Amino acid sequence: MDGEVLDRVFLTRVVEPGDELAGRWVREFGVSEVVRRVRGGRALPGVSARRWSGLRARAARAEPERDLAEARAAGVRFVTPGGSEWPGQLDDLADARPLGLWVRGRPDLRMWALRSVAVVGARACTEYGAHMAVTLAAGLAERGWVVVSGGAYGVDGSAHRGALGAGGATVAVLACGVDRPYPRGHTELIARIAEQGLVVGELPPGDHPTPSRFVLRNRVIAALTRGTVVVEAAYRSGSLVTARAADRLGRYTMGVPGPATSALSAGVHELLRGGAELVTDAAEVIELVGDMGELAPVRRGPVLPRDLLAPATRRVLAALPGRRAAAADEIARGAQTTPDDTIARLYELTALGFVERHGDGWKLTRQAVMSVRTGSQHG
Amino acid sequence: MDGEVLDRVFLTRVVEPGDELAGRWVREFGVSEVVRRVRGGRALPGVSARRWSGLRARAARAEPERDLAEARAAGVRFVTPGGSEWPGQLDDLADARPLGLWVRGRPDLRMWALRSVAVVGARACTEYGAHMAVTLAAGLAERGWVVVSGGAYGVDGSAHRGALGAGGATVAVLACGVDRPYPRGHTELIARIAEQGLVVGELPPGDHPTPSRFVLRNRVIAALTRGTVVVEAAYRSGSLVTARAADRLGRYTMGVPGPATSALSAGVHELLRGGAELVTDAAEVIELVGDMGELAPVRRGPVLPRDLLAPATRRVLAALPGRRAAAADEIARGAQTTPDDTIARLYELTALGFVERHGDGWKLTRQAVMSVRTGSQHG
Repeated sequence: MDGEVLDRVFLTRVVEPGDELAGRWVREFGVSEVVRRVRGGRALPGVSARRWSGLRARAARAEPERDLAEARAAGVRFVTPGGSEWPGQLDDLADARPLGLWVRGRPDLRMWALRSVAVVGARACTEYGAHMAVTLAAGLAERGWVVVSGGAYGVDGSAHRGALGAGGATVAVLACGVDRPYPRGHTELIARIAEQGLVVGELPPGDHPTPSRFVLRNRVIAALTRGTVVVEAAYRSGSLVTARAADRLGRYTMGVPGPATSALSAGVHELLRGGAELVTDAAEVIELVGDMGELAPVRRGPVLPRDLLAPATRRVLAALPGRRAAAADEIARGAQTTPDDTIARLYELTALGFVERHGDGWKLTRQAVMSVRTGSQHG
Repeated sequence: MDGEVLDRVFLTRVVEPGDELAGRWVREFGVSEVVRRVRGGRALPGVSARRWSGLRARAARAEPERDLAEARAAGVRFVTPGGSEWPGQLDDLADARPLGLWVRGRPDLRMWALRSVAVVGARACTEYGAHMAVTLAAGLAERGWVVVSGGAYGVDGSAHRGALGAGGATVAVLACGVDRPYPRGHTELIARIAEQGLVVGELPPGDHPTPSRFVLRNRVIAALTRGTVVVEAAYRSGSLVTARAADRLGRYTMGVPGPATSALSAGVHELLRGGAELVTDAAEVIELVGDMGELAPVRRGPVLPRDLLAPATRRVLAALPGRRAAAADEIARGAQTTPDDTIARLYELTALGFVERHGDGWKLTRQAVMSVRTGSQHG
């Protein structure tokens, strides 16, 4: 087993998400040296005696091999910086970069994140906010974009449901262990996201959410995506933290306007007055976050060369007929895998622009067909 | 009688509002020479034969002395460029500058326009739009700003009513003769505006509105004010024309957001996406259009030296007691004029920041008291 991976699992048990002091240690001394010092009780710079003893106490209880084994048994993998599934844009967080991410779900996190937008907002949203979140997320998903949100009640949940309902791709970034759905009322929803998309978090299995963990989770949502859309938010709300984090990271910050009389639009309007972009539908979002020249209403082809796809996903892509649509069962036989696995990979391929729904079936997009004709033979 | 005034009245009967070719003639040859040539049938440059014969036909029917006499009898005056009541900012319209403005109402147009904001929008507005127009206009009026609009149904009417209801100042700029209320359903409202504020227009008495006159009227609203707020507007609506005209003239262009699902907010959102300022209340409007350092919630003092006030208005100002509030009747006796005239001038003084309502009475603002103590003796 990779020693650095174990060391990182160990550190997720010992330091809180986004701890920039720990991030500096990792940058200056390397992960294994930091772990050695914490385990051995050899001081690290800039830490108070009280904090140091807290760290040491948590270190004494940490069992990284067991964490990893239990996670694996539960279908959870641990993705680390530099690894093949690591979304490089998280490195923009510098010393606040996650030590690693726990991931549930089949698709490749790195590839999904390349073409993703965050849709976030108030937990206690209005019907208008829920409607806008569902509609925006569905529109983004239909155009092959991955909808990232926080799995919370209100706008977050509506965004996930909108993407799922459109047969699209969605990622929930949790502020707790990914084996521990929070809020409890979203247990079913989060299970469905893990089935059809990805559930991601920095905290090791079993860990609980805390207020500061919610706030720090937001930086991951902001960094992971090309931009953040705030649907409804009161003054000084957590969604505005995500939006401002996105702005600082050079991502697009967007807001959906609402009635000037609505307290739940007041935070969004404040954001818009501060320079965020006003968006009213998915097309306008894509016009901003899409590649140069990706005009909103036009569905575009793959953004990734197919040799970056996971081998099993490439096999599903190769099993699609050249021109006509096919049912998932037929494709599964060609790809020599199960229908469930095939469907999950078809969703991934849809999100990446290779595949589109066609009635009950699936077919290659025009662009995917053209790239087979003119491009490499990797597929 | 001033020959140039008569000549300008004559021309308002002969050319349409905003005719830039006629504006160029006036600039190049002077008003009287243009009138001489039109009357005498001597050609002017750049005009087609067909248009020229139309001009000549209208010229044959024009009776400027009678127009002026009838207007005067109806309480309507004719304000011309360079005159003491002419709002200098209209000169920004260059060759599209009005030949003159017909004005009903007591206050001084030039002074009111100095501290004015346009609130415009859809005729078929929603309840939300009407509510926002009333609230914004009332808030502006309460803070001593003059609300300018077009007298139309919907947002315009709501804006006028909001200002009137707050005991504030409002100006209706009509696309027809100011003696001819349009729309007919607003006869009462326009009469009330003429009583408490100003009704203004480019077209000579008796003239009817036409679609192009509505569009050209909008440039006067835009030029007269420090900024234009669009409350609700569908795509490609007339209010957007006003807003864009305001922008071209270097005035502030503002929009009130609404639900992204509302077709009547779509035009406003388009405007906001194009760079207009998002505003949700009067304080935010004033923060933009107010003088440097005029922070929104603070009620500020007079912006004008009192020697610029009309003599009758100065007498009303002088009749206000130094510290306490007084009823209009008492002030009227001191100013040796009628209560009606006194109330109209008190509204004007309120709009200019000299006076504020105090229960049923009126009193000097703190700033007006201070300017009496420290300032000139003109009042």
